[in-house]
Amino acid sequence: MIYSKIPLSQTVVTLCKTHEVKHIVISPGSRNAPLTIGFTHDAYFSCYSIVDERCAAFFALGLAQQLEEPVAVVCTSGSALLNYYPAVSEAFYSHIPLVVISADRPKHLIDIGDGQTINQKNVYGSHVLHNANLKLDLLEVEQGHPDQEVPILKSIENKLERFLGLQKDIQSHNESEIHDALTISKLHSGPVHINCPFDEPLYDTVEELSINPKPFKLQQRVEKVDPFEIKSLLEVWHSAKRKMILVGVLPPNAIEAQWIQEIADDDSVIVFTETTSNLHHPDFFPGIDKMIAPLDEADFKALQPDVLFTFGGLIVSKKIKAFLRTYKPKFHAHIDLYGANDTFFTLNKHIKLTPNAFLAAFLPQVTHHTKSTYKSTWLAVRQKRRKLQKAYIQSLPFSDFTVFYTLLKSLPKHSQLQVGNSSAIRYTQLFQVPKSIHVFCNRGTSGIDGSTSTAIGASLGSDKRTTFITGDLSFFYDSNALWNAYIPQNFRIIVVNNEGGGIFRILPGQKDTANFDRYFETKHHLSASHLCEMYGFQYVSANDNEELNTALETFYADSDAPKLLEVFTPSQLNDKILLDFFKAVK
Amino acid sequence: MIYSKIPLSQTVVTLCKTHEVKHIVISPGSRNAPLTIGFTHDAYFSCYSIVDERCAAFFALGLAQQLEEPVAVVCTSGSALLNYYPAVSEAFYSHIPLVVISADRPKHLIDIGDGQTINQKNVYGSHVLHNANLKLDLLEVEQGHPDQEVPILKSIENKLERFLGLQKDIQSHNESEIHDALTISKLHSGPVHINCPFDEPLYDTVEELSINPKPFKLQQRVEKVDPFEIKSLLEVWHSAKRKMILVGVLPPNAIEAQWIQEIADDDSVIVFTETTSNLHHPDFFPGIDKMIAPLDEADFKALQPDVLFTFGGLIVSKKIKAFLRTYKPKFHAHIDLYGANDTFFTLNKHIKLTPNAFLAAFLPQVTHHTKSTYKSTWLAVRQKRRKLQKAYIQSLPFSDFTVFYTLLKSLPKHSQLQVGNSSAIRYTQLFQVPKSIHVFCNRGTSGIDGSTSTAIGASLGSDKRTTFITGDLSFFYDSNALWNAYIPQNFRIIVVNNEGGGIFRILPGQKDTANFDRYFETKHHLSASHLCEMYGFQYVSANDNEELNTALETFYADSDAPKLLEVFTPSQLNDKILLDFFKAVK
Repeated sequence: MIYSKIPLSQTVVTLCKTHEVKHIVISPGSRNAPLTIGFTHDAYFSCYSIVDERCAAFFALGLAQQLEEPVAVVCTSGSALLNYYPAVSEAFYSHIPLVVISADRPKHLIDIGDGQTINQKNVYGSHVLHNANLKLDLLEVEQGHPDQEVPILKSIENKLERFLGLQKDIQSHNESEIHDALTISKLHSGPVHINCPFDEPLYDTVEELSINPKPFKLQQRVEKVDPFEIKSLLEVWHSAKRKMILVGVLPPNAIEAQWIQEIADDDSVIVFTETTSNLHHPDFFPGIDKMIAPLDEADFKALQPDVLFTFGGLIVSKKIKAFLRTYKPKFHAHIDLYGANDTFFTLNKHIKLTPNAFLAAFLPQVTHHTKSTYKSTWLAVRQKRRKLQKAYIQSLPFSDFTVFYTLLKSLPKHSQLQVGNSSAIRYTQLFQVPKSIHVFCNRGTSGIDGSTSTAIGASLGSDKRTTFITGDLSFFYDSNALWNAYIPQNFRIIVVNNEGGGIFRILPGQKDTANFDRYFETKHHLSASHLCEMYGFQYVSANDNEELNTALETFYADSDAPKLLEVFTPSQLNDKILLDFFKAVK
Repeated sequence: MIYSKIPLSQTVVTLCKTHEVKHIVISPGSRNAPLTIGFTHDAYFSCYSIVDERCAAFFALGLAQQLEEPVAVVCTSGSALLNYYPAVSEAFYSHIPLVVISADRPKHLIDIGDGQTINQKNVYGSHVLHNANLKLDLLEVEQGHPDQEVPILKSIENKLERFLGLQKDIQSHNESEIHDALTISKLHSGPVHINCPFDEPLYDTVEELSINPKPFKLQQRVEKVDPFEIKSLLEVWHSAKRKMILVGVLPPNAIEAQWIQEIADDDSVIVFTETTSNLHHPDFFPGIDKMIAPLDEADFKALQPDVLFTFGGLIVSKKIKAFLRTYKPKFHAHIDLYGANDTFFTLNKHIKLTPNAFLAAFLPQVTHHTKSTYKSTWLAVRQKRRKLQKAYIQSLPFSDFTVFYTLLKSLPKHSQLQVGNSSAIRYTQLFQVPKSIHVFCNRGTSGIDGSTSTAIGASLGSDKRTTFITGDLSFFYDSNALWNAYIPQNFRIIVVNNEGGGIFRILPGQKDTANFDRYFETKHHLSASHLCEMYGFQYVSANDNEELNTALETFYADSDAPKLLEVFTPSQLNDKILLDFFKAVK
C-alpha cells in the first residue's frame, strides 16, 4: 500500500476510512498532494477529479444528498476553498453532510507573501457546524526547513524531550479534531471544515503508516421520544378543530405508509405538500400556490388552522408563507431532527425527531378525531382547481407553462428529478409529479449557482436514473458542471430556454424597457448546443409543441452519451400566462 | 430622475456618486432591485450586467486594477455574494479597491427559513478592510408589513417620537458606515463589504430623493516622509557593500525615470525585476529564475546581499524566495504604501511610502557610492545566460517554451498583457517582455479562478489594447468570463493548451501513471473552439511553429469580434524542456 509520508495526511485519510467517508471529490493542486496520494491509493475510497471547485463541491453535495452520508471535497490552498463556499452554505441550510478538507501552508508561511495563501481558518464563518484547524507535524517543520529553528522550541531547554511531547500532543489534537468534525457532520448532517497545513516535500510516499490513531467508537444517531412533549402536543391536537400539516423538503420514503394513511383518514386535517416533499396521498394537497392564490379574505379565514405541524426543510411557496404569517395558527410545532425555523413568526415548539419517529409515537395516542368538514371543503376546492387547470392548459399556446406540464408528464417512472432554482422549481410546483418520481432542489439557499453539478452528483449517488430540469440562466451559470468525467449515459438535462431570467417578468417592476432587458431579465441569445458539442452530450431542441413531443418520444431511450433537450419558449408570453392561471382556476 | 423609493438605496447610490465610485457591475436579482434601479437610472454611473457573480467580481477587479480607483459589484441576497469571495480575497492580497454591495433580507427574515438567505454580515472574514452592516429603514418595515409591529418599538410609550428619533439615528449610522467603507477602500486600496437589508416592496420608484446626506470632505491620500527613517536607512545603505533591490508586482510608471537611472548607475546595486514589476532598465535583472537556478553554493554566497530593499506586491519567483530565505541579507526594508510581508523571515523595516516617494526622498541624500564589482559580475552572468538561452531555444522542438518565446515577441507595442496563473506566468518570467508592454497577473492569491474575467475587466479599464495569455485549465475554469457583453473587438486571448495542468509535470511526484493523469495533471481533450462559437469570438488554432507564425501574422489585425488563438502543445515534452533549460544556461 502507498501512503503519503506526511503523518497528518495519513491521519486524515485513515480517520475518513474509519468514519466510513467513502466518496472523495478532489480538485487538482500541489499543496493537497499528500491527501490526493493518500485517498487515491486506497481502493476503499471512490475518488472523483473535478477541476472547478465550485462545481466539485456542488457535485459532492448531490452525492451526499442521495447517499445521506458525509462526502468529502479536497482542494489545494488559497482561493480554491472559497469556491466551495456556495455549496457549503447550501449544505448548511439543507442539512447535508459535506466535509471540506482543505490543504494549507504551514503557519509560518501564512501572511508573509507566499503564493496561493489566504487566511483559511474558520473561513466559512457561521455556515459550518465545526472547524477542525489541524496542526502541522513538528517533525515536518524540521524536515522542510533544516535551516530554520522551530519557533515554538526556541526557548526550551531540553529540546528533544519537549519535542516528542509536543509531537504526541499535536497528533492527539489532530485525531480528536478530525474525529469531532466527522462525527458532527454525520450526526448533525451538515458541513464541516478540516484545514490541513502541509509543508514541503509534499510528494514523498511510504509503504507503511507511521501513525496509529487511538481507537474510538463510531457514534450512532439516537432518536429519543419525550413522552411529556408528545402528551402536550396531543392536548393541543385534540382540542383543535382545524389542523394543518405543511411539509417542506423531505427525502423520499421518510414517512411510513401506515402513518400517511392515518393522517389522511382524519377529516380535520389538511396536508399541504410540495413536489420537494416527496409525500403523496390522494387526499393530500400538492400545488399549494394554485390552492391559495385565488382566495379572498373570507376564504383565508376559513382555511386558517388552529394548529400547524410542519415537517422537513424549507418551503418553496411564498404564498403559503404570506398566508400563515397573516392568518397565524394558535399553535405551531416543527418536527425535524436538525433545526426549526420560525418561518411564520409563531413557532411554539421544535420536536427534535424525524417526522416518522414523531408520528409513530404520536398517532397511536390520538384518541379521538374531530368530526369536521375542513378537509372535504378544501378537497372540493382542489377538485375545482384541477378541472379548471386542465381546461386552462388546453387553451394555452406553447409557453413555459405548457412545457413544464408536458415535461413532468413525460418523466420516466421510478426516476429521480432534479430541479433548478428560480422559475423551474416554481413551475414544477404547479403540476402533480407522479408518486414514483423522487424530486430534489437546492432550497437551502435557493441559489442558481450549482444545480447542474448537484444533479450530476445526485445521479451518481442514486440507483435511479436522473433527469434535471432547469432554466437557462441557472444552466449557463453552472456550465462548468459538464466538465465532469462521471456523467452517466442515462443522465438527462432539459433546459427551458426563454432567453433570460423569466422570473423577473413575474415579479413587480417595469417591464420591456432596455433597462429591464439588460439589468433584470438579462436577455441573451445563448444556446446549450455548443456546450453539448464540447462536453459530448447528445443535443436536441424544440421550438413548439410538436417538436417537443417528437423529441420526448426518444429522449429517454438508451444512448451511449448523456442527452440535453433545449426547449425554446417565447419569453414575452410566459408572465401573462402564469398570472392569468391563478385567475383561471378561481 | 428616477430613484428607488427606498431611502437606504438612495443613500448608497448617492454616496457612491459623492465618493466618485463610477463603475458598477451588477448581477441580476430581485432583492437588489432598489440598487439596480438607482445605479442604472443615473447617467453618472457606467453600469455593467454580468450574471455569474464569480466572473462579475473578477471583472470589477480588472477594472479597478487599471483605473486604480474603487469599482463596485452589486448582487442579490443568499449565496450570490459568496461567489464574489475568490475575487475579494485576490483584491485583499493585491491591494485593489473593490466595493462589494450586497442586498440582504431585513433582519426579521433571516434565519427563519426564507429563501435566498444566509448570514451575510461580515461574511468575508479577515479578507476585507471594512464591513458596513447597514440597517433597514424602520419606515420600510412598517410599509412592508402593515400587520406586524416593529419589534423594536414594542415596549415604547411614545412610539412616534421614538420612531422618528430612531429613523434619524439609522440614517446617520448608514451614512457614516457607507462613508467609512468607501473612504477606506480608496485610501487603503482594498476590498470592503457594504451589506444592505431591503424589505418589500422592492420595485417602487420616486422622482425626488427623500434623503439628504450630511456633506463631508473626501479624504485624499497623503504620503508623509519620516526624515529619521530615511536617515537610518541611509546609514544602512552607506555601510553596505552589496545592495539588492527586488521588485514585486508594481503598476507601470510607478517610478520616475531619473530615480531608475540613478539606481542603475550604482555599481553596488543589483535590481531584480519580474515581468509584473513593469520596471525596465538595461542594467536591471529580469528573468530571476534563469539567473538563480544554475547557481551553486559559492555563487549564492557571492550573490547574497548585505541589504535588501523590496518594492511592491507579491513575488512570483519561488527560487528567489528560497535563495533569500537561506542567504539572508543583514537588513531588509520593504517599501510599499499598504503592506509589508516578511517573505524572507528577515524584515527589519516597513516604509509606508510609494517606491517613487521613497526614492525621491532617499536617493538625493545618498552621499557616496561604494566602488564595487557586484553588479558587473552578475551582468556578465546575465549576458552568458541570455546567449545560452538563445542557443537553447534554437535547438528546441515546438513546445510550451518555444510558444511563450514566440508569443511574447509578437505582442503589439504599447499594449497591455494579462497573464493567467500557474504555468503561464512562470513561463512569461523566463523571457524579456518589451518595455512598452504593461504586464498584469492576479498574484494576490495566485488563483486560476478568475484570470479571464480580470483580463476582460482590465481591457475596459485601460486605453491600451489587451492580450490575455493563459493555460488551458485556467481558461476552462473561468469559461463563464466570456458571457460578457462588453468585450472589446480588439481583445485577444491566447490559450496554450497542453491538455491538462502542465505545472504538475514540473513539480516533483510520480508522472505518467493513470493516477497522475487523472488527479494531478487532470488530462482532458477540450478545445476552446466551442466556447468561441457560443460567445462570438473568432477562433484560430495552431499545432506547430509554422501554424503559429501564420496565425500571428493576422491575429492582432482589426476585426469585428474579439479573437482567440488556441495553441496545442505536446504535454509530454514540456517538463523536460523546462528543467533542461536551467541546466543549459549554466
